[in-house]
Amino acid sequence: MITTQSRVTMKNRATRLMEQADILAGYSESQTELTRAYLTPQHRAAHDQLAKWMQSAGLDTWEDSAGNQWGRKPAADPHAPVLILGSHSDTVINAGKYDGNLGVLLAIETLALLREQVFPFHIDVVAFADEEGTRFDTTLIGSAAVAGCFQSGWLDVKDADGVTMAQAMREFGLDPDKAGSDARKPEDTLAYLEVHIEQGPVLEAENLPVGVVTGIAGAKRFQCQVRGEAGHAGTVPVSYRHDALCGAAEMISCIEAFAREHEIVATVGKCDVLPGAVNVIPDDVRFTIDIRSLSQSQLEQCTQQLFSRLENIAHQRQLELDYENLYQAPAVLCDETLQQQWASAVETVTRKPPRFLPSGAGHDALAMAELTSVGMLFVRCEKGISHHPAEQVTAEDVEVALACLAEMVTGFDAGH
Amino acid sequence: MITTQSRVTMKNRATRLMEQADILAGYSESQTELTRAYLTPQHRAAHDQLAKWMQSAGLDTWEDSAGNQWGRKPAADPHAPVLILGSHSDTVINAGKYDGNLGVLLAIETLALLREQVFPFHIDVVAFADEEGTRFDTTLIGSAAVAGCFQSGWLDVKDADGVTMAQAMREFGLDPDKAGSDARKPEDTLAYLEVHIEQGPVLEAENLPVGVVTGIAGAKRFQCQVRGEAGHAGTVPVSYRHDALCGAAEMISCIEAFAREHEIVATVGKCDVLPGAVNVIPDDVRFTIDIRSLSQSQLEQCTQQLFSRLENIAHQRQLELDYENLYQAPAVLCDETLQQQWASAVETVTRKPPRFLPSGAGHDALAMAELTSVGMLFVRCEKGISHHPAEQVTAEDVEVALACLAEMVTGFDAGH
Repeated sequence: MITTQSRVTMKNRATRLMEQADILAGYSESQTELTRAYLTPQHRAAHDQLAKWMQSAGLDTWEDSAGNQWGRKPAADPHAPVLILGSHSDTVINAGKYDGNLGVLLAIETLALLREQVFPFHIDVVAFADEEGTRFDTTLIGSAAVAGCFQSGWLDVKDADGVTMAQAMREFGLDPDKAGSDARKPEDTLAYLEVHIEQGPVLEAENLPVGVVTGIAGAKRFQCQVRGEAGHAGTVPVSYRHDALCGAAEMISCIEAFAREHEIVATVGKCDVLPGAVNVIPDDVRFTIDIRSLSQSQLEQCTQQLFSRLENIAHQRQLELDYENLYQAPAVLCDETLQQQWASAVETVTRKPPRFLPSGAGHDALAMAELTSVGMLFVRCEKGISHHPAEQVTAEDVEVALACLAEMVTGFDAGH
Repeated sequence: MITTQSRVTMKNRATRLMEQADILAGYSESQTELTRAYLTPQHRAAHDQLAKWMQSAGLDTWEDSAGNQWGRKPAADPHAPVLILGSHSDTVINAGKYDGNLGVLLAIETLALLREQVFPFHIDVVAFADEEGTRFDTTLIGSAAVAGCFQSGWLDVKDADGVTMAQAMREFGLDPDKAGSDARKPEDTLAYLEVHIEQGPVLEAENLPVGVVTGIAGAKRFQCQVRGEAGHAGTVPVSYRHDALCGAAEMISCIEAFAREHEIVATVGKCDVLPGAVNVIPDDVRFTIDIRSLSQSQLEQCTQQLFSRLENIAHQRQLELDYENLYQAPAVLCDETLQQQWASAVETVTRKPPRFLPSGAGHDALAMAELTSVGMLFVRCEKGISHHPAEQVTAEDVEVALACLAEMVTGFDAGH
């Protein structure tokens, strides 16, 4: 437990971490905004910087076959199992400074804090080199490689300039033929712990610095098309119309009500209306649905029920509805025991009952769940904004998160 | 009244008229589609052809100061007042063959049919040279010039190639300084009668060849903007959202219900959603409203009431709603006596009770109402389609319309 005496140190550590986040944000493809993609010179420079900080924290460092940066606090027994702490170091285009990077810096700082302590297991810090998928059409490349899920087909994927991932790896100094070959083994791995900004408004609304993640929601995305009949806005009475936009509007309202009713999230993010003239009744509306739930079975069931309602709306209006599944990611639950360990760490540090909340966004923990049990802690971020320069966390919350992670590692029960 | 014997002649006349519509459609800027704009070589060629047909019908022909083509069946007294029949000869881009042109051809054919009859008033046929506003930013140029509403400011308006209307008039052989100078005088004009395709589905749905127009709906157009808060589609619970698209969807449904409730038409034809990403909650939706009513006071009142409902929706969802009036055209009622005269002509010809219906689209009668009382007859068109190559009328319906217009002119009560 963090004593009153050590609070000063903790505050200094949080301040230093905030400075490190600022320094890390300097490794960018652009002078005016933060963009750092996989296998770029900025990736190299940021990881070199992280390696230095890892070494300052007393860690042994190396780069793996996929370009992830590692630091290890070794146990006495070289054959001891490993507890992995980390997050990702890459960013989206025009990113904020904390998404991913905060989790990496917190892991390093925690091991700096626990430098004198001895553990019966190795503790590894990892900075995953690609989570966002900014450069290639694939996300979670770094963590997938560690979890044994690297797919050799990815090597042929090209970036916007036509450079394949294999070429980019060679230019970076990696051997593409070996990518993923040093994946961790489940039997050697105790767990994966990740701290990440919430990217949502819940903790801020409830005035809490941190929250325990229950799992990562499964997601499905659909492209929908509603077709009706075009007509003159002046001459076709309302009762004669088959207005595709009026149909789509009813569907969008239905999606919103459905999400509320089932306590899931569902979003229509894109909507295009054709022919798109002020005096023509629309005959063709195309929109997307993004639907997510922490429970995979609820997600499947809700998707079916929702489309049955939408089809009903189309039928009643004599409109045609077509839809296509664009994408899906399965729901992953955080390990129950790890959730309880996080909860008691949070309670110890904040002296408040812990708040459990799901993650609507994907994280490296999604890929790492293929390898080992995962546990995550969310840190409050301002207005829930992420993937944007306005992304913000406070040094006070970082201090709490640091204390929680230190508490979590100190109390980690390797035998759970 | 049209006798059984004359039916054969009427059928032939209708067939000839359909052939003339085909010929007229050949005067186009494009080989593959029909586009004929104001003050173009195609305008010249089409009007030359119409003048020939007018002359064949025994009419005296001339072109006026705005490029409208006229034909007169003169009364014995040169100072007699004038009954004007007509419609427009210009088209939209990629047009159908009947919008406007049918009314011009029917007027000529009617005077051919009544060639031997003597009237105590002149009967003029007019082919208005611009109703659609395809070339310049102004509609109803031809009829406005005749009604004394030509605005000299229009002469400076440029087409897409930067040619002003004044230049185009000179190239066409007109003197722009004289445009509108030969406007008709109210005291010399008895009425304006126009036959036009319905451009809507009502007559087809009720299996009627023609209908009597009660008036031309007034219209208002608005650009609306709904602003909310963007956010991550996965991480922001529904209860925390200020989704601009969900708000706009509720508004669109409200507009539809409101139009149904008030028996007017209201249309959202354009709708753009920003930022427009599948996994981002929209924060900015821009849509248009086109609202029309035959009653100007109802239009004003409904617009107010509708926006009050929309503002209420925005308020309840903590969204911002802004709107701007883009355009308005006043409602014009057709003359009551002319409506009754059309009605009895329709009843005589079809032996069915006449169907009265409003016009949701604008017509030359809108401008001509500034000059004189106006009366209109609608002809059924296939599926209500207009402004499209699929625009279609049948020879049988044209025969009925011809008989109705002949009946209307024959029975025209100049003293009404």
